[in-house]
Amino acid sequence: MSGSALIGIDWGSTNLRAYRFDGSGVVVATRESAQGIVNIRDRGFEAALLALCADWIDSTPNTVILMSGMIGSRQGWIEAPYAPCPASSGDVARQLTRIDTSVAPAWIVPGISVVAENGVYDVMRGEETQIFGAIDSAASAFVIAPGTHSKWIDIENRGIRNFRTFMTGELYSLLRSHSLLGRLMIDAPHDADAFSRGVRIGLEGDLTGHLFGVRTEGLFARIAPAALASYLSGLLIGAEIHSATQGPSRWVELQKASTLRIIGTAAISGSYRNALAQAGMTNVELVDAHHATARGLWNIATQSTQLREPK
Amino acid sequence: MSGSALIGIDWGSTNLRAYRFDGSGVVVATRESAQGIVNIRDRGFEAALLALCADWIDSTPNTVILMSGMIGSRQGWIEAPYAPCPASSGDVARQLTRIDTSVAPAWIVPGISVVAENGVYDVMRGEETQIFGAIDSAASAFVIAPGTHSKWIDIENRGIRNFRTFMTGELYSLLRSHSLLGRLMIDAPHDADAFSRGVRIGLEGDLTGHLFGVRTEGLFARIAPAALASYLSGLLIGAEIHSATQGPSRWVELQKASTLRIIGTAAISGSYRNALAQAGMTNVELVDAHHATARGLWNIATQSTQLREPK
Repeated sequence: MSGSALIGIDWGSTNLRAYRFDGSGVVVATRESAQGIVNIRDRGFEAALLALCADWIDSTPNTVILMSGMIGSRQGWIEAPYAPCPASSGDVARQLTRIDTSVAPAWIVPGISVVAENGVYDVMRGEETQIFGAIDSAASAFVIAPGTHSKWIDIENRGIRNFRTFMTGELYSLLRSHSLLGRLMIDAPHDADAFSRGVRIGLEGDLTGHLFGVRTEGLFARIAPAALASYLSGLLIGAEIHSATQGPSRWVELQKASTLRIIGTAAISGSYRNALAQAGMTNVELVDAHHATARGLWNIATQSTQLREPK
Repeated sequence: MSGSALIGIDWGSTNLRAYRFDGSGVVVATRESAQGIVNIRDRGFEAALLALCADWIDSTPNTVILMSGMIGSRQGWIEAPYAPCPASSGDVARQLTRIDTSVAPAWIVPGISVVAENGVYDVMRGEETQIFGAIDSAASAFVIAPGTHSKWIDIENRGIRNFRTFMTGELYSLLRSHSLLGRLMIDAPHDADAFSRGVRIGLEGDLTGHLFGVRTEGLFARIAPAALASYLSGLLIGAEIHSATQGPSRWVELQKASTLRIIGTAAISGSYRNALAQAGMTNVELVDAHHATARGLWNIATQSTQLREPK
């Protein structure tokens, strides 16, 4: 990044975050807005970006912008093609997609794709950047990025070798907001006992067969309405862990992996750590998601020759 | 039923159906309305019943009414307690719940409950009546009642020995109407190829891990938008069959059961028959749901001494 200044952008469906780096990769400022891509009207991407950090760009000559996340999806600013697995941060740095803006050169990090053993594709977009910021010098690792679409990632030779997506977060929202199960629930703080009970059942696998139990546990007053949402959350996370660790190939090694890294916010990462402990996986390290994203953007930027090309 | 005439009522969440029987159990008339219990205001249950069949009651002395379904739930006319498994039609006939109406004696069939090996309750309400109409003289059988909350029922000694509920139909509706997956879909007739492909993946188990594939199969244009809903349906039904047949206890016997009976409408039963065939279960017999309900109500009524008690 010699001779230019980096602004890193994490642009997801519902949020937009900007990181200002100094010349050695230290984040000197962070800003955030609710201008995720689903909230942008009439393709006003450049306006949203400038509203957040035009002053940073104006005040620094030779600024370059590197963006990751849903901004590179079909619904985003421009579609940045997926890089196939295996993919390292160096591979990704060679496949950036250029965007024309009126103020500074801007690039988008590709998502990553993989074809599962049954022939079905899986994709990620945004998590790859977090992962490259979280694995550091680890040659091999297992990483979990929980969320709407939870990812379990198998890292080998510093690259993403394979990964799987679980719709845990989206299922939780759907069931909480729109299902017969949700009608029995009262909003309340996290209930650790009910969560743990859900995890225990969820770890049996067989999710469709256990979901109806959320209704009956409520119906028979065995779990209070204020604790039912935590039970559902535990059930879904338990089922995710079951699926991720029972499948074919290297995933079974997760059970004996020395350390598992979870990239997320404190609340969700803590829930996953507790659920993993119930499954016998206790060597878990939590990585802050925002920190990982910023480091990932910096790592990719420093490896890219594209970013230093003339306009 | 000597000396009295039976009206059988199948009263679910969204529909109300009435069957008029002659003295030998033949259905001589059927009526239907959209006055399911969720559409009844101010507890107007009696008014809804009379709107459908007051003339039947008026024209026949000694009419008795027997009802099954969600009318006996906490949200219904009166809560009819669950009968525990194992439960035969005779057991159920001894546990009817009386309702006071202004026109004729009326009774509600209890639902059935069971406690699974992991301690979680399961319940049915309405399906028990269909089952008692579908198993006839079969001493042992396996029965599937697909729907919003699909039931797999293990019949022994003409009674319901055990059963399990799968939220297949409700998950389909939620994912079709409210999820990110649904946004990629276009309404279209059933696509047999996409359905079969979904069943194949669903039979691997691991539902949360496969749902995201509905998105990627659409994203990579491997399944057309008009066929994606059929793929999702196959995936969910395949996962249900996997769960029902992989679990502990007698359920594995389903794989080798001589005949499996499916109670349902033609469309849904046909889909299940095709999916079961893909799982190697080909001895499947389809039973019409309305026919089974009417027979079940008659069977229970003829075994009940309560129905013949004086007011």
